[in-house]
Amino acid sequence: MSELDGLLADLRVFVAARDWQQFHDPKNLAMLIASEAGELAAEYRWVRGDDADAVSREPAARARIAAEIADVGLGLLLLADRIGLDLGVAMKEKLARNAERYPADVSRGKAERP
Amino acid sequence: MSELDGLLADLRVFVAARDWQQFHDPKNLAMLIASEAGELAAEYRWVRGDDADAVSREPAARARIAAEIADVGLGLLLLADRIGLDLGVAMKEKLARNAERYPADVSRGKAERP
Amino acid sequence: MSELDGLLADLRVFVAARDWQQFHDPKNLAMLIASEAGELAAEYRWVRGDDADAVSREPAARARIAAEIADVGLGLLLLADRIGLDLGVAMKEKLARNAERYPADVSRGKAERP
Amino acid sequence: MSELDGLLADLRVFVAARDWQQFHDPKNLAMLIASEAGELAAEYRWVRGDDADAVSREPAARARIAAEIADVGLGLLLLADRIGLDLGVAMKEKLARNAERYPADVSRGKAERP
Repeated sequence: MSELDGLLADLRVFVAARDWQQFHDPKNLAMLIASEAGELAAEYRWVRGDDADAVSREPAARARIAAEIADVGLGLLLLADRIGLDLGVAMKEKLARNAERYPADVSRGKAERP
Repeated sequence: MSELDGLLADLRVFVAARDWQQFHDPKNLAMLIASEAGELAAEYRWVRGDDADAVSREPAARARIAAEIADVGLGLLLLADRIGLDLGVAMKEKLARNAERYPADVSRGKAERP
Repeated sequence: MSELDGLLADLRVFVAARDWQQFHDPKNLAMLIASEAGELAAEYRWVRGDDADAVSREPAARARIAAEIADVGLGLLLLADRIGLDLGVAMKEKLARNAERYPADVSRGKAERP
Repeated sequence: MSELDGLLADLRVFVAARDWQQFHDPKNLAMLIASEAGELAAEYRWVRGDDADAVSREPAARARIAAEIADVGLGLLLLADRIGLDLGVAMKEKLARNAERYPADVSRGKAERP
């Protein structure tokens, strides 16, 4: 079983034990992800870009940042599962499309998504 | 190699080929994640919660939603990698903490995080 | 003096008294707005759309929601001021453009932005 | 009539002419605000903090940024109106509470909210 599949299995047990599926329609989960992403952004809003690596290593900030990253990730797993999407496959496919959309020779050194 | 490790290896190659590491300080990546999460939210903002599952199955909407989910996920992988965090481990640990924070018997059927 | 101008004058005094201008470059303020918008979204993430009006009238939720709305608004005022934009004028102009972009007869009853 | 009241009157006419009230429950509007805030964040995600003022003056970027700021503001007006809140008053009250919460002498020069 892959790492994400194992996590998803644990996550399903966690949710079912709390009878939380009822709250997890795709709209609510998209809103969860947006709010968790907002909390992650809050960690860096007053940090200078040049200081952001160092701040990310401070134990207290790091613990909060790791928790926010994980919250966003768990929200993604929940949403992908709800709509019958394999998160790992979706990421792999999107990366392949990005590689076509941003040819290396054209995009080198230019700020672009993702 | 785990699924996430494989994805991360591909993602590193993608970024390095475009010389985009220079843009990927943790602050910028947190902002990327917030903006991608906003795009995901945009897909559902006018959709009724009761219709959100059906909308998520419509091919055109589904393709956009899958792409947004993947964009958020790729942003998380980039940020975790930048700060030396194993995304899968962080999610596993956070789920374990959530299980303690929201005991099943107390939390059953009550809307709560994660 | 208009209402927004009065608020802005008070806000400038508040910021200057704390020497916070140094943190208020446009990037940081855009990140502030995204994180406050995430906190606002958090208030409604588990609320059914049909219940959202009633929840917004419950005193405790209402106080939190009003505070989050205000935080986003103060962030907008700070950012507009920083980049020399009149927020009220910008909103008026955008509404005029939206009226052209979404002709009433074509858009009636169809979910669209904004 | 105050500036925000005038804007709100125009906004109500705009929405009613398109029969869009049906989409504007508080949950949907909170999601709108989060998605528009995400678009605003996208404008600055690859911009260095030190360059953010200059970027905000470039005509093309400025027009997009002004439009995103306005979109967030219009969303706030819609949500405040829907839940019977005076946006200007809410901002004024929140600023007063922030002034108490962050005493000038204690907070001077320290990165803090709002």
